[in-house]
Amino acid sequence: MKHNFFLSTLRGPAQVIFQANALTGALILLGICAGAIASGKWEIAVGAPLGLLVSHLTGLLLRLPKDEGVAGLWGFNGFLVGCAVPTFVAPSTLMWIVVVLCSAMTTWVRVGLNLVGAAHKVNSLTFPFVLCTWLFLASSRLLDGMDGVGLSHPMLPAIHHFDSSALLPSTLLEAIEWPLRGVAQIMLSDSAVVGLTILIALAINSPRASLWTLVGSVIGTYGAMLAGGSQVAVESGLYGYSPALTAVALGAVFYPSSVGSAIWAILGAIVTLFVQAATNLLLEPLGLPALTAPFCITTWLFLLPLLSFAPNHKADHSSWHKAKSSTADSNN
Amino acid sequence: MKHNFFLSTLRGPAQVIFQANALTGALILLGICAGAIASGKWEIAVGAPLGLLVSHLTGLLLRLPKDEGVAGLWGFNGFLVGCAVPTFVAPSTLMWIVVVLCSAMTTWVRVGLNLVGAAHKVNSLTFPFVLCTWLFLASSRLLDGMDGVGLSHPMLPAIHHFDSSALLPSTLLEAIEWPLRGVAQIMLSDSAVVGLTILIALAINSPRASLWTLVGSVIGTYGAMLAGGSQVAVESGLYGYSPALTAVALGAVFYPSSVGSAIWAILGAIVTLFVQAATNLLLEPLGLPALTAPFCITTWLFLLPLLSFAPNHKADHSSWHKAKSSTADSNN
Amino acid sequence: MKHNFFLSTLRGPAQVIFQANALTGALILLGICAGAIASGKWEIAVGAPLGLLVSHLTGLLLRLPKDEGVAGLWGFNGFLVGCAVPTFVAPSTLMWIVVVLCSAMTTWVRVGLNLVGAAHKVNSLTFPFVLCTWLFLASSRLLDGMDGVGLSHPMLPAIHHFDSSALLPSTLLEAIEWPLRGVAQIMLSDSAVVGLTILIALAINSPRASLWTLVGSVIGTYGAMLAGGSQVAVESGLYGYSPALTAVALGAVFYPSSVGSAIWAILGAIVTLFVQAATNLLLEPLGLPALTAPFCITTWLFLLPLLSFAPNHKADHSSWHKAKSSTADSNN
Repeated sequence: MKHNFFLSTLRGPAQVIFQANALTGALILLGICAGAIASGKWEIAVGAPLGLLVSHLTGLLLRLPKDEGVAGLWGFNGFLVGCAVPTFVAPSTLMWIVVVLCSAMTTWVRVGLNLVGAAHKVNSLTFPFVLCTWLFLASSRLLDGMDGVGLSHPMLPAIHHFDSSALLPSTLLEAIEWPLRGVAQIMLSDSAVVGLTILIALAINSPRASLWTLVGSVIGTYGAMLAGGSQVAVESGLYGYSPALTAVALGAVFYPSSVGSAIWAILGAIVTLFVQAATNLLLEPLGLPALTAPFCITTWLFLLPLLSFAPNHKADHSSWHKAKSSTADSNN
Repeated sequence: MKHNFFLSTLRGPAQVIFQANALTGALILLGICAGAIASGKWEIAVGAPLGLLVSHLTGLLLRLPKDEGVAGLWGFNGFLVGCAVPTFVAPSTLMWIVVVLCSAMTTWVRVGLNLVGAAHKVNSLTFPFVLCTWLFLASSRLLDGMDGVGLSHPMLPAIHHFDSSALLPSTLLEAIEWPLRGVAQIMLSDSAVVGLTILIALAINSPRASLWTLVGSVIGTYGAMLAGGSQVAVESGLYGYSPALTAVALGAVFYPSSVGSAIWAILGAIVTLFVQAATNLLLEPLGLPALTAPFCITTWLFLLPLLSFAPNHKADHSSWHKAKSSTADSNN
Repeated sequence: MKHNFFLSTLRGPAQVIFQANALTGALILLGICAGAIASGKWEIAVGAPLGLLVSHLTGLLLRLPKDEGVAGLWGFNGFLVGCAVPTFVAPSTLMWIVVVLCSAMTTWVRVGLNLVGAAHKVNSLTFPFVLCTWLFLASSRLLDGMDGVGLSHPMLPAIHHFDSSALLPSTLLEAIEWPLRGVAQIMLSDSAVVGLTILIALAINSPRASLWTLVGSVIGTYGAMLAGGSQVAVESGLYGYSPALTAVALGAVFYPSSVGSAIWAILGAIVTLFVQAATNLLLEPLGLPALTAPFCITTWLFLLPLLSFAPNHKADHSSWHKAKSSTADSNN
């Protein structure tokens, strides 16, 4: 692949879910921006492309190896930063400086964490986004130039949670909307339409990835319902997004397709819903969001043993853009 | 050693304290179950063998290298999960599902963490148990299917702790009971009789290991008393169990016997009591138990420098079942 | 260099800011002790040289490779322990035992963490001090033998911080004092005179290092003022010390001098001020101080990618005492 600036940048949003396809990326970007505008959050419609652009440009400025940039791997963490920071912090001069600084930072933090991970044959996944965003969101509570209006109140975990746990959805539409919102929450949107857009965008490049994303969200959402997660969290997809990412990572990216890897992916999605609850709990006293940390933690725990579920398959999970089966868009 | 399912599984409880002996393991298992029933906690008497069995079976299912399974290394983390989860969470359908899921998970998390640790020549010790149990216990606060009745109330650390610090034991029997309870607390029991059973079980396979376990518990218990730890914690052995494990790890497992390694083990037990207090403090806002994390943290800090206390000894602490002096039971 | 006990020990305080010069170290030690006595804190004037001595002696006792000891690298973490522990804990028998234990421990923890870091070509920096001091300070809240009078009250992060954010300094003297206090806070002093002493001591060995330390403190202090940090924190130098260390590490130690590395160092100092706020926030529920953790975290994130800003420069940041340009004092 040659480096076409426009196409390479657009592959960023697709790489959040492991796809190197500019059309997929463009659709996701469009979906996120349209969804943001529809719900009156113009700052996300600005932040998302800004974060994407800045982090991709940072890769160019630092003269990182081109192949990763062409595959869209410089930009996906910055794209998530651009979705997340304006979700939690009100627009201000400092907030926009932070979007730029934090997006740029994810690009080299990813290089660093990937070097660390490569020693153990795992990839940094979306953790550069999680780590950098946590640091800047936490700082917003002590710096008056930022107002963390979207952050929840720091509180001690309750002994008994009185918010009622989720009941079965009352209509079929609702039953479908919950996991679709879970897919949208990967990029911090709670719109079922955005979730559907993401699934379609994925299917263009890899039906298998699209399917596993949905399956993961279904497992997380209904698993949390059965386990007694809160109604609000289950309905808005907050138990779906991390299991969705774990399922697609284990089921469609890092392992060749087999019965074993399918069971592994389903198991991973189930465990992720518990890790989601645990991470939410751990962050309650700080009032910080879990972001995609539950996905990263669980997926690492499922990748690190370097198990193999197919004959002649040598496990190495340090990168996905060479090894995985999904092909890049044909535009280059 | 050949894989005898029954004997291999029974070696699990012994491997919590680094021994590959089925008789030692059987005695420990028996002690824990009898102690649990005696204090009316039948769910622990079910959970402990269940966790042990599930985690050992997981090693078989995942087709992990047999030698570790034969040595009982698949099961010891799961055994601890089976002791811990029912201690902190009331019996319910979800609680039993979690015992199974969490026990199984420790087996492959151990493989993963051991691979990471091997790069730095250290072993994951009981940290797979600690990490997985923390995640599932934390999740119990947000999932109504589990009721964490045994977890302490989340609270901000007090500036002054008003619970009186420990005084000298008033009778000789009490003086002996405290560190014996410390040994029992390794497996979350507070019974001095269980502690004594464990020491006897250890002595069958390795008198040296038994002695160091007791010495560590004595140092932790009485060190905490002198340092002003709370009466309740000191009396119930909560300052003894982690130093006991550190002492046996440094004094009887990872180093050949020498004056230098003996001083190192004593120093390690002393430091562990401070790390125990620190870990308890860090977890207060979350209301989670320290489990054996203080042992893992301190022992890593004492192993990572790869010091040698004997001539011609090349430090490599990544595994203990080949290198250690204690011989396996003769039954196979 | 040969091992002269007196000179080697004195290089310790200089190595906090990466200099292997006994005169620099002696001046810093003198400055800290004089500043402590001037403000009535005799326990720091005792603790600092005690921690330095104990940690250097520990290197000798453990028979660590001599070259690091001669360069003063055994003692700098212990020196910081001796500055920090008496700052936060009132003098008592247990407090002095902890100063000795914690100082000694930094020496071998540094060896261990450096071995881990070397696998990823980074150094442990001052993190052995941070980690060990955190553990012992946290333990002080649960052990009545220590009274953490200098620790702040554990509290949940406020949603709105009502302490007024910093205004411009009202006089030129004040404008200069703030960043000088930032330099002094590297060793937990809030005296501008001590800060000036440190800068002069550094300039003796390396004017470049002295300059970058000042530049980093200026960036952190005025950056935090512009971002809306609290008046008290900005004035007392608490936003300056970590950026100062990051700036000198990136600008004068780990990279050869170039335009690229200068921009990198400035960027690093800016990011550090946000990480400082984040770390402060994360530690609020525990009432623990950030120490130099923000410097360690940020510098690692800027070193791990192994970027190069000069032709023919092969990045390896695992140690500084061989590679760096500053020459050792000529006394040996």
